[in-house]
Amino acid sequence: MGTERLSMPIGEAMFTQRAIRRFTSQPLATADIETILEAASKAPNGGNSQIARFLVVRDAERIRAFGALYRRAWWAKRKDDEGWAGPEDVPPDNTRHLAAMRLADEMGSVPCVIFALSVPPSYPESVFPAAQNLMLAARALGIGSVPTRLHPSVFAEFRALFDIPPEIGIHFAIPLGYPRGHFGPTRRRPIAETTFWESWGRLGPR
Amino acid sequence: MGTERLSMPIGEAMFTQRAIRRFTSQPLATADIETILEAASKAPNGGNSQIARFLVVRDAERIRAFGALYRRAWWAKRKDDEGWAGPEDVPPDNTRHLAAMRLADEMGSVPCVIFALSVPPSYPESVFPAAQNLMLAARALGIGSVPTRLHPSVFAEFRALFDIPPEIGIHFAIPLGYPRGHFGPTRRRPIAETTFWESWGRLGPR
Repeated sequence: MGTERLSMPIGEAMFTQRAIRRFTSQPLATADIETILEAASKAPNGGNSQIARFLVVRDAERIRAFGALYRRAWWAKRKDDEGWAGPEDVPPDNTRHLAAMRLADEMGSVPCVIFALSVPPSYPESVFPAAQNLMLAARALGIGSVPTRLHPSVFAEFRALFDIPPEIGIHFAIPLGYPRGHFGPTRRRPIAETTFWESWGRLGPR
Repeated sequence: MGTERLSMPIGEAMFTQRAIRRFTSQPLATADIETILEAASKAPNGGNSQIARFLVVRDAERIRAFGALYRRAWWAKRKDDEGWAGPEDVPPDNTRHLAAMRLADEMGSVPCVIFALSVPPSYPESVFPAAQNLMLAARALGIGSVPTRLHPSVFAEFRALFDIPPEIGIHFAIPLGYPRGHFGPTRRRPIAETTFWESWGRLGPR
């Protein structure tokens, strides 16, 4: 079923997969979520052990509770990285974190969050490609997303909130919804700046 | 340019991205490699810091040298995991590793290898989604691949072989080529077995 519904050319999906951090309130259909989970399941993974697990949350009450936790986790990370405790500590000329800071405020009201989790041995190389399939498939259905990570200081509370056992690995929290704003081209460095050929430091054939 | 060339429906690419471990000797065109590197560059990454780096190797001599190293790395991993030192230690009824063992023998003669590397802080969540874009784009062009990892015991030798500085992170070695054999559906568990809804342990709406 997934194959027919995911008809967008792969180049279009990849080249317009901009991080979407603001969403309309429109709910996501179960069939769409199932399609993107199916796409996730097809990603390469070590020894086909299929250790990736997903937790889909649409219940507004649960998302509100998660939003409060996510906001604290986001600021805990800023404290670690920049020494900021809250918005009052952000230098006025610092715009780099604005969009993510706004998401930290709005996470509690997104229409859907999917958590990318795993059973042991929880190798990230067997989970992240599935998460990327999930987000690309969402894009192909017109659904925006952005991968976020939780600060370890909230892991225990996060597990308690969703009854997640201690042995389950925690990878991404992915809010999903229809975008306020637009998909669109991403800004990326040209591949000549990020790729070498034959040996480190050697430029490509043209 | 990448958008036009990557016209395969995304569902078709994802649902037929089987691990390809045997390749014809047909070389890969530079334009195709550039297209899949462009697709890789578009993947989500933390703070758009774009830490992923790629090293493309097509030179037969270098690939032969890498193949010898890869074979040792592969067996070092088997020694760690199963206690096997070589083919003579594999129980006759164990077929699980056959395809990967054959790749370890044949890596030295694949037409192309792309190494997924990174500059610090080398977060894997900023590299693996790019690698998945790369392999999906390759699939869309009819080019097969499989993500492999190197055993740390060969890292120093690997760096020496390709002049890779010590601060550069090593993630995947991805052989690429036109498949001997076929792309095709992957075998995966149904999403009902890998997904919970609203809370861990709770099944979906249908």
